[in-house]
Amino acid sequence: MSETRTEIASLGEFGLIGRINESFKPTLPESVKGIGDDAAVIDLGGEYGLLSTDLLLEGVHFDLTFAPLKHLGYKAVAVNVSDIAAMNGIPGQITVSLAVSNRFSVEAIDELYSGIQSACKDFRVDLVGGDLSSSRSGLLISVSVFGKVAKDKIVYRNTAKPSDLLCVSGDLGGAYMGLQILEREKGVFLADPNMQPEFDSKEYVLQRQLKPEARMDVVYELAGAGVVPTAMIDVSDGLASDLLHLCTQSGVGAMVFEENLPIDEQTYLAATELNLSPITAAMNGGEDYELLFTVRQADYDKVKNNPKISVIGYMTDQPQEVVLATKGGNKHPITAQGWNHF
Amino acid sequence: MSETRTEIASLGEFGLIGRINESFKPTLPESVKGIGDDAAVIDLGGEYGLLSTDLLLEGVHFDLTFAPLKHLGYKAVAVNVSDIAAMNGIPGQITVSLAVSNRFSVEAIDELYSGIQSACKDFRVDLVGGDLSSSRSGLLISVSVFGKVAKDKIVYRNTAKPSDLLCVSGDLGGAYMGLQILEREKGVFLADPNMQPEFDSKEYVLQRQLKPEARMDVVYELAGAGVVPTAMIDVSDGLASDLLHLCTQSGVGAMVFEENLPIDEQTYLAATELNLSPITAAMNGGEDYELLFTVRQADYDKVKNNPKISVIGYMTDQPQEVVLATKGGNKHPITAQGWNHF
Repeated sequence: MSETRTEIASLGEFGLIGRINESFKPTLPESVKGIGDDAAVIDLGGEYGLLSTDLLLEGVHFDLTFAPLKHLGYKAVAVNVSDIAAMNGIPGQITVSLAVSNRFSVEAIDELYSGIQSACKDFRVDLVGGDLSSSRSGLLISVSVFGKVAKDKIVYRNTAKPSDLLCVSGDLGGAYMGLQILEREKGVFLADPNMQPEFDSKEYVLQRQLKPEARMDVVYELAGAGVVPTAMIDVSDGLASDLLHLCTQSGVGAMVFEENLPIDEQTYLAATELNLSPITAAMNGGEDYELLFTVRQADYDKVKNNPKISVIGYMTDQPQEVVLATKGGNKHPITAQGWNHF
Repeated sequence: MSETRTEIASLGEFGLIGRINESFKPTLPESVKGIGDDAAVIDLGGEYGLLSTDLLLEGVHFDLTFAPLKHLGYKAVAVNVSDIAAMNGIPGQITVSLAVSNRFSVEAIDELYSGIQSACKDFRVDLVGGDLSSSRSGLLISVSVFGKVAKDKIVYRNTAKPSDLLCVSGDLGGAYMGLQILEREKGVFLADPNMQPEFDSKEYVLQRQLKPEARMDVVYELAGAGVVPTAMIDVSDGLASDLLHLCTQSGVGAMVFEENLPIDEQTYLAATELNLSPITAAMNGGEDYELLFTVRQADYDKVKNNPKISVIGYMTDQPQEVVLATKGGNKHPITAQGWNHF
């Protein structure tokens, strides 16, 4: 081993992934797409198989002080299904591996699996395998998902074209505001365990954080409307970060209109209460698991009346320019302030 | 949540898996086989897809005091490929998720991935995805594998028939003896850091522990000989434990002849040196990742001259009787003393 020691933090998650990606180029003809999109793509002959995986660790991705185990199980499945949705695919089977410390009882594990089961039902996937291990420290959940998509319906993140319309499903920033509220109430509780948390009128943002949905409904509705997006990615790291991935990999720029950003009223109110900017929450919050996608201008009529879809801007032929046009008429370059947990 | 608290240790790993299995029956017609075999089976139309996953945790499954990161990366891939081999399948793609603490440098991660890459090359699989996370405590590796098998070539573990011959590839007990040697030398080193470890003439058992192989070579050779096993499982928990799985699920019994157990000379010598029984190592050691399988008697001529395959017994129609016939002429019931890490 080399004597040099380079800290992982100096590369960050994306730097490390890039480094790994360099040395792992697919060699089998069936491996259509390796690292670099929401899911890997495997040629099955008649159609494409999709494979993706996500890791959730206690103390890094979730805090059991406020995350109910049942919701956590649901979320672990949803974030994986979201990766299949982002390829315009249909999920089929999942595996779930758990590492648990002896702090957890069988009843706690049952709670977790009841959430997994609920998500399996909602997203019509089967749990078909997994692994179980003891853990020295807390809970770890590793989920993998297998799905499929017709070859002429697959959507990558690197195929957006200039003048395509930029769309996003649902609304943004809610999951981030939910987390801020939960952190605040945790602080209050730790300071005085007799205090009751104040969650009135915050149910929606809390749910966005604790029990996010994968937007399979949007995948089905786009198919029903006869729309195949030109590019797609799920919003896991925040609109800014994920839009930059989409632009960089497609070699295009983007113009986003602040006034078109879909933000729920509860997200606005929570942001105001905490002296945070709802626009920052929407742009950089992350964990919304909405679909960010581009469509041809000719498809505008097919998406404009869908209440689940907002057209928030358009793509340009200026790859260096990914810009937010504010309500005040200013233009700000969009930069990633995504979450780096290293 | 219920007020009752049941300790996970009271159920054990297999008890917990059984409990989960009960509540997760596949619902999609494509999900041919869920939890309960070495890999899940997915109907792809013309052939079957295979999906499996394994978790490796520092302090539970490996000890970085003596496990080189490169070998660990290799092992993480091999144990997953072994699950595909046990279905008589061909692996194609893997995903690798890592959780690493800041104790690890980029160079250490490079070492780990160089082992992963080496295994990818040896087993002809592509790394196509994964996830990266920080960890509060040590290293965690979660690998998932996707493979395929022709519908008329798939082999389950629950389809052994009475009078089938029981076969095992390679040799047994080596990985366990390698671990014992490593643990002994670790103890010596901790007591006196100036002591050099004594690994002379133990290269083979050390390699069996640190860098096991998946027996894809045996899968290819069986196919070449025109043999489709009637049932198969990989020996990960020890011959006794895995044979009991095979018998229980097939509803058959087994007679195993002690004198036929394949045990390498280094395994014998290491066992003697440590005052352990080589037979116990072979029966209960685990982590050999050999293939345990049954063939029709009519296929005996096709396997008997393969030096990689030992015929160690036969299956019976007495499901309650899984028996070891000793060299001395005694018969002992085989019981699982497999590893329970809870």
